[in-house]
Amino acid sequence: MPDNKIIEVEKDKTILSAAISAGVYINSVCGGDGVCGRCKVIVKSGKVTTQPNGAITPEEKRQHLYLACLSTIHSDAEIEIPPSSRLDFEKLTTQELDSRLKGLYSESEEIESVIPISGEGIFIHSPLATKLYLELPQPTLEDRLSDLERLSREVRKIQDIPLMQAGLANIRQLGELLRDSDWKVTVTLGKRNDTVEIVLVEPGDTSRKNFGLAFDIGTTTISGQLVDLNSKKVLGTKATYNRQASFGSDVITRIVYAQEEDGLEKLHLAVTDTMNLMIKELIREHDIDLNDVTCVLCSGNTTMMHLLLSVDPAYIRREPYVPTANFVPTVRAAEAGININPRGLLSCVPGVSSYVGGDTTAGVLSSGLYKEKDLSLLIDIGTNGEIVLGNKDFLVACAASAGPAFEGSGVACGMRASSGAIQKVKINPKDFQVTYDIIGNVKPAGICGSGYIDIIAQMLATGLIDRSGKIKAEGSGRLRSGDSGREFVIAFKGETASASDIVITEADIENLKRAKAAIYSAAAILVKHMNLELSGIKKVFIAGGFGTYVDVENAVKIGLLPDLERKKFIFVGNTALAGARQMLLSYEAMKIAEEVACNITYFELSVELGYMDEYMAALFFPHTDLNKFPSLKVK
Amino acid sequence: MPDNKIIEVEKDKTILSAAISAGVYINSVCGGDGVCGRCKVIVKSGKVTTQPNGAITPEEKRQHLYLACLSTIHSDAEIEIPPSSRLDFEKLTTQELDSRLKGLYSESEEIESVIPISGEGIFIHSPLATKLYLELPQPTLEDRLSDLERLSREVRKIQDIPLMQAGLANIRQLGELLRDSDWKVTVTLGKRNDTVEIVLVEPGDTSRKNFGLAFDIGTTTISGQLVDLNSKKVLGTKATYNRQASFGSDVITRIVYAQEEDGLEKLHLAVTDTMNLMIKELIREHDIDLNDVTCVLCSGNTTMMHLLLSVDPAYIRREPYVPTANFVPTVRAAEAGININPRGLLSCVPGVSSYVGGDTTAGVLSSGLYKEKDLSLLIDIGTNGEIVLGNKDFLVACAASAGPAFEGSGVACGMRASSGAIQKVKINPKDFQVTYDIIGNVKPAGICGSGYIDIIAQMLATGLIDRSGKIKAEGSGRLRSGDSGREFVIAFKGETASASDIVITEADIENLKRAKAAIYSAAAILVKHMNLELSGIKKVFIAGGFGTYVDVENAVKIGLLPDLERKKFIFVGNTALAGARQMLLSYEAMKIAEEVACNITYFELSVELGYMDEYMAALFFPHTDLNKFPSLKVK
Repeated sequence: MPDNKIIEVEKDKTILSAAISAGVYINSVCGGDGVCGRCKVIVKSGKVTTQPNGAITPEEKRQHLYLACLSTIHSDAEIEIPPSSRLDFEKLTTQELDSRLKGLYSESEEIESVIPISGEGIFIHSPLATKLYLELPQPTLEDRLSDLERLSREVRKIQDIPLMQAGLANIRQLGELLRDSDWKVTVTLGKRNDTVEIVLVEPGDTSRKNFGLAFDIGTTTISGQLVDLNSKKVLGTKATYNRQASFGSDVITRIVYAQEEDGLEKLHLAVTDTMNLMIKELIREHDIDLNDVTCVLCSGNTTMMHLLLSVDPAYIRREPYVPTANFVPTVRAAEAGININPRGLLSCVPGVSSYVGGDTTAGVLSSGLYKEKDLSLLIDIGTNGEIVLGNKDFLVACAASAGPAFEGSGVACGMRASSGAIQKVKINPKDFQVTYDIIGNVKPAGICGSGYIDIIAQMLATGLIDRSGKIKAEGSGRLRSGDSGREFVIAFKGETASASDIVITEADIENLKRAKAAIYSAAAILVKHMNLELSGIKKVFIAGGFGTYVDVENAVKIGLLPDLERKKFIFVGNTALAGARQMLLSYEAMKIAEEVACNITYFELSVELGYMDEYMAALFFPHTDLNKFPSLKVK
Repeated sequence: MPDNKIIEVEKDKTILSAAISAGVYINSVCGGDGVCGRCKVIVKSGKVTTQPNGAITPEEKRQHLYLACLSTIHSDAEIEIPPSSRLDFEKLTTQELDSRLKGLYSESEEIESVIPISGEGIFIHSPLATKLYLELPQPTLEDRLSDLERLSREVRKIQDIPLMQAGLANIRQLGELLRDSDWKVTVTLGKRNDTVEIVLVEPGDTSRKNFGLAFDIGTTTISGQLVDLNSKKVLGTKATYNRQASFGSDVITRIVYAQEEDGLEKLHLAVTDTMNLMIKELIREHDIDLNDVTCVLCSGNTTMMHLLLSVDPAYIRREPYVPTANFVPTVRAAEAGININPRGLLSCVPGVSSYVGGDTTAGVLSSGLYKEKDLSLLIDIGTNGEIVLGNKDFLVACAASAGPAFEGSGVACGMRASSGAIQKVKINPKDFQVTYDIIGNVKPAGICGSGYIDIIAQMLATGLIDRSGKIKAEGSGRLRSGDSGREFVIAFKGETASASDIVITEADIENLKRAKAAIYSAAAILVKHMNLELSGIKKVFIAGGFGTYVDVENAVKIGLLPDLERKKFIFVGNTALAGARQMLLSYEAMKIAEEVACNITYFELSVELGYMDEYMAALFFPHTDLNKFPSLKVK
């Protein structure tokens, strides 16, 4: 009550655990330790036993209030969850919830099919949290090891773990749990800062059900994946806009907002609330019990990681630009407000500096750049464009503030690369008629990054825009003046999903030009700074959520990518997400990522003489200096 | 408010920390993590900044409620602590508090002077929690390590620590704290389950102020010591009866009581409340700020440790007698309800089995038995009498249920060995006149264990009792019939502190006889079980709170101690407390204690054939078989 949900639970389940299984979210910041007292429920009927706890006053006890985390159900029971014990987003009406879920896209199969080149297979399978089913020998007068040591002994028979911790909450319930479950239990072991922790002990065999989540928390986009930790299989992927965007579109404005009253809290809740919604949808779609989700691994830029953990990012933007932590210890997901198993773990990919975060580390891991023999470049196209240059011997990285245009944000008809997005475009040079490919078998709803690249390249080729990005005044019925200046119509409202035309405006082109200039010039200056030549680069890994569909030729034509042999370009998809998933599935990958983060030298663009000149010179299509794009000149 | 206490605090102090410094106890089960929401206070005036937290509702915010742990004071401020945020024992009136403090004895200097033979000096000085004052190099554009890694780097320059953890609560405040304190901070490092944790970071240099507590939690008596962790000096010792005694005098009745509704909680509160009172008195007497008390180390029998940690001890008394944990991980003291620094640590001496606990391990450590070349015996005389036989090659232990008589409990005029206790007694064989020594320069208030030993030995020698303990009907004006049978007057009410006589009754003698029989027979059967002879023992360590004053000759005469050469007996005082203190001060001692606990073989008396016979035979003074006490026969 009051949801009228009926659920069958096993013996020894706590009310908290039963509620989670029923999809009812109860407040539990302490992770079921019986400490926070936020999970009070009213037992209306049925046999429930509880452990005494100071959080329940004698008056509350008379009113049959119990802590859900410390109370176990022994018969049919009716439990009411008072509003004060419910998680915020559960208070929404069904309509409100639906409208919020609308922003949540499932990534298409196609995106998912981009396997990062180094693949999952190369790392030893050793997830952040593992489950072991144990049948303990019962104690006898001859074998009288204590319950906790008995459990540890059995674990050590399977895994050689020198250090093992166990929380007091687990110890407090251990004696009864072992005996009630006939000494057959599943223990979840979590890797926590180089030690192993007994995260939880459950009755019976639940070892087949062990799930984790990988997240890439981008400034504009949050992507999440549900992973079966046993089979390593990705069960589902979701992405949505980061709701923090309403507080500013880039990290700097977010940091500024965090200084306002309640600013940090609002930014923190915006990201965790979004993640919790994604988790909820993912487990619903795959019929998974939230109790069986035992760990989360997040990548993201340094500011995003601070906001996720509710750590003030203020010092990131004050000289000398130092974050509070690049290496964040593994904590309970509940401590950061992420709803999985209340005792489940949350780990973050280690970052490099204030502006090169764990997403870049994950990219270097996932692309395999850290073990390349030849000079290679990784370009991660996002709101912050991160560039890494190097190979197995050295790694140097910088970040360029590109803005969210290529993610379909801040442009008139932009959208993410999801169902309804125009992803490929052709413009007939004779009659300027437009043909396009849409993601999914639906009417077009907007344009995603790869679509914009095609459009600009073709407008340039057909002379619809000049090299500075100005739209020609006439020459096609699709050219017109709109509310915000000149625009070119890609799809008329008859063809579109909505009642309006899909257009690209001069302002859009300006936005995209600045974005491509920021990324190109960052790569160019980084190479120059190292006294190397762009032509010396053997491989260019292109990462980012939009990467799959990009036409390399067009990307070079607009000057987003440098003019290198086309076969050198390798699209590696969302490497921030893939790297997080690799670390979720492999402790070996996590250790390598730590090494990578230590080994990357951060290069601060803003203090580099010549960067501004390089950027200004890149504010043309493809570039002011056409000698830098020789293949285009020949044509 | 409402205490009207005024306190000056430094910059960056939280309200919680200020309140603790002022001696006002605020609820804070989560240890200042901002998780439990129990430390709400009302800011009546002054400038206070806070971190946003879901525990404060918008309504509460309007009422100026703040979480004390997350709010820092920046000007003169008036803070009100509502009753709901106060710790229970603070709600007592001054009278009630005084009456409860009356039960709290300071141990006399004399007791404290008993230094265990192996002394403190032999272990490397490396306390459970250490404080390091660090002046961090400020970050520059060239040295841009994150705050947390900067702190770790500086720590590692002083101590080589591979693994270091830091709680999210510390990280959340780190950025501001480092800058506001001009990069001069004191970091408290705690040893936690073989890793090192950053327990807390404080502004400025507080390294000189680092205090810890050692506790021996006995079934009948709780002793506690305040220790300066820098100088290793014991600042004060207190002892009092364990208030759990009102729920039963031995561990079995306590375990039974723990099964009742709220039983476990009541037993848990009885011990923690007593400990908190002792801590409060100790720091008040020595003018120490509770924030500077960073760790606690507890020894006690296995049941006491379960109750301290609120772990159900039920399975200790069910065959096959297995505790939930002998080795308990180090936790936050706040998790167990012990009030020191909210983030301070609590560690327990590892135990051996259900009936041989950490107090025995501490005894073996502190007496040095574990490194003796010759066969030695340790007899710890308490409510549970623990016996350990062995040397550096083997250790075997058993426990005998002796009852609390030698601790002055359960006997008509018994009391602890504290001020007013009759500790030595002489009875003139001619006129049966009694002379006695009292602890302190006061009138006698009762009889402590060593006094009882003298009295029984002399009554036996003078023929006032027979060998079965029956008091003779006549022969002295001090012999009479009281309400509970025959008794012998030690001090008449004119001499005593109260308005009644101090007597020993036939029932007392019976109680003491059973106690000494339990201890003697346990030692005898243990030696026999190992196919050894009592006479082969080279050293006998006598431990227990009463040990100092015991007359060995009399203890042998009543059959409490075996009839060995008197020079073999060594009184070592309260080794359970001394061992806990050694572990508090030395990680080396802790590792040795872990080894000792693993190496002790537990010997279960109750399943040993012949134990009951041995016990029955010992129910005489000194014993049924006088051949076992040859030195007494000769006399």
